[in-house]
Amino acid sequence: MGRVTARRPVLRITAEGTRKRPDALAAEEPLEIRVNGTPLTVTMRTPGHDVELAHGFLLTEGVIQDKHELASARYCDSPGPDGRNTYNVLDITLAPGVAPPDTSVERNFYTTSSCGVCGKAALDAVKLSTRHSPAEDPLRLPVDTLIALPDRLREAQRVFDSTGGLHAAGLFDADGRPLVVREDVGRHNAVDKALGWALLDGRIPLGGCVLMVSGRASFELVQKAAMAGAPMLSAVSAPSSLAVDLAAEQGMTLVGFLRGTTMNVYTGQHRIVTNGMT
Amino acid sequence: MGRVTARRPVLRITAEGTRKRPDALAAEEPLEIRVNGTPLTVTMRTPGHDVELAHGFLLTEGVIQDKHELASARYCDSPGPDGRNTYNVLDITLAPGVAPPDTSVERNFYTTSSCGVCGKAALDAVKLSTRHSPAEDPLRLPVDTLIALPDRLREAQRVFDSTGGLHAAGLFDADGRPLVVREDVGRHNAVDKALGWALLDGRIPLGGCVLMVSGRASFELVQKAAMAGAPMLSAVSAPSSLAVDLAAEQGMTLVGFLRGTTMNVYTGQHRIVTNGMT
Repeated sequence: MGRVTARRPVLRITAEGTRKRPDALAAEEPLEIRVNGTPLTVTMRTPGHDVELAHGFLLTEGVIQDKHELASARYCDSPGPDGRNTYNVLDITLAPGVAPPDTSVERNFYTTSSCGVCGKAALDAVKLSTRHSPAEDPLRLPVDTLIALPDRLREAQRVFDSTGGLHAAGLFDADGRPLVVREDVGRHNAVDKALGWALLDGRIPLGGCVLMVSGRASFELVQKAAMAGAPMLSAVSAPSSLAVDLAAEQGMTLVGFLRGTTMNVYTGQHRIVTNGMT
Repeated sequence: MGRVTARRPVLRITAEGTRKRPDALAAEEPLEIRVNGTPLTVTMRTPGHDVELAHGFLLTEGVIQDKHELASARYCDSPGPDGRNTYNVLDITLAPGVAPPDTSVERNFYTTSSCGVCGKAALDAVKLSTRHSPAEDPLRLPVDTLIALPDRLREAQRVFDSTGGLHAAGLFDADGRPLVVREDVGRHNAVDKALGWALLDGRIPLGGCVLMVSGRASFELVQKAAMAGAPMLSAVSAPSSLAVDLAAEQGMTLVGFLRGTTMNVYTGQHRIVTNGMT
């Protein structure tokens, strides 16, 4: 876990003057994920929880739905400049009968759509890939429980306070208790790590859970939540237009600007219990 | 330009109660970039400045170095659900003799390195691709000029104030004057749009310029700045470890946490004129 942060010298400049000091930075290194020996992707990530990251990535890409569809995950022998293993190449072996992902160049979700490359095609592609129905999830969450989530996410972020450079993603139950919190320099990686943990813990689909992220809510993050069957995504910052459209189509609750005692509820308002607030 | 923001209804919840209102969100739609008719990539972007985005993407991927290496850029006829062109597919034709990008699955920068998948391999790959030497750039910038950049970036962000959801990237000259500011839901897209503008304006390599970004400084953003020959990258938030390492190797100045009257200078401190501050 020593690789989650890295120290570098820095010149700090303030109105009072300049000062040299060491600074703790979020570590960033490449991770290559191979499936059955074939390179699938290289992502720039913060080292740690790589096996969860791979599980979450394959889940949200629609390759696996269950941990038993993945036979093994092991680091390849990938020596760095000093001759030691970098632990930056992870080889995934799928269980017999599980189709490996299509790695052809033409692979993109728009080929499945009758219309062109547009927002609707993106929504349709998710509809075709998801096997869960967040729309039917009976989760209900009091406003006070939601309001407490950002602080609980921060409390669980051991690294953030020292670097200020990591995105966080956490899964919380209906009482606001954290199930898992993961961090990464990449927002999508933090989410994949949290969802990969859930897959390994037998919790997919994520009924009754909230996925909370430290930053913004893009189409991609709503897509990942939908692929994991999560009925609610909440974010500290703004959603995009297509994120809202996808959450609406999937019957998910999407909360943005969750800060202090306020929030914006974009979709699925029926899951937020306002206790008679008017 | 009407597609930069999109309105959606929102339920605003505060301690005072709940209120329904329309909310302006950052628009997000897919853009497919084709090169000589072959699909190269699909990126989720905020519509607008797509031709600049494609130029910047191809510049920072090492495909083109000059606007004359690109013969034409035009939107394909890509009808959406309503039958109208979505303007989400851009076909780039390269000039005769310019090699199209390698779109094979095995294409990744680690195949060029003698060592495995690691930070050093990532640095080596950039060294092999860049044709400019930011290290030799004579740019010098007073602290006061740097301190003014975040506000100037915000001033130029017409959209941010209404949505809170867009990343910004701006190019500034040595006097802190903005040359261009671009916004996008994706941080890499905002940078590609700004660098694509510079390419079209004949300003590559970006001698004497500062690239300023609204968020964090990742490896990828330093890589893009290096590919454009920019001697300085400044960011409102934290850099990652590998971003600092790449800036150091490229002889670039990397500034992080540029807020209020303070900043952290990670590399290339000789370009910051502190006027005798101690």
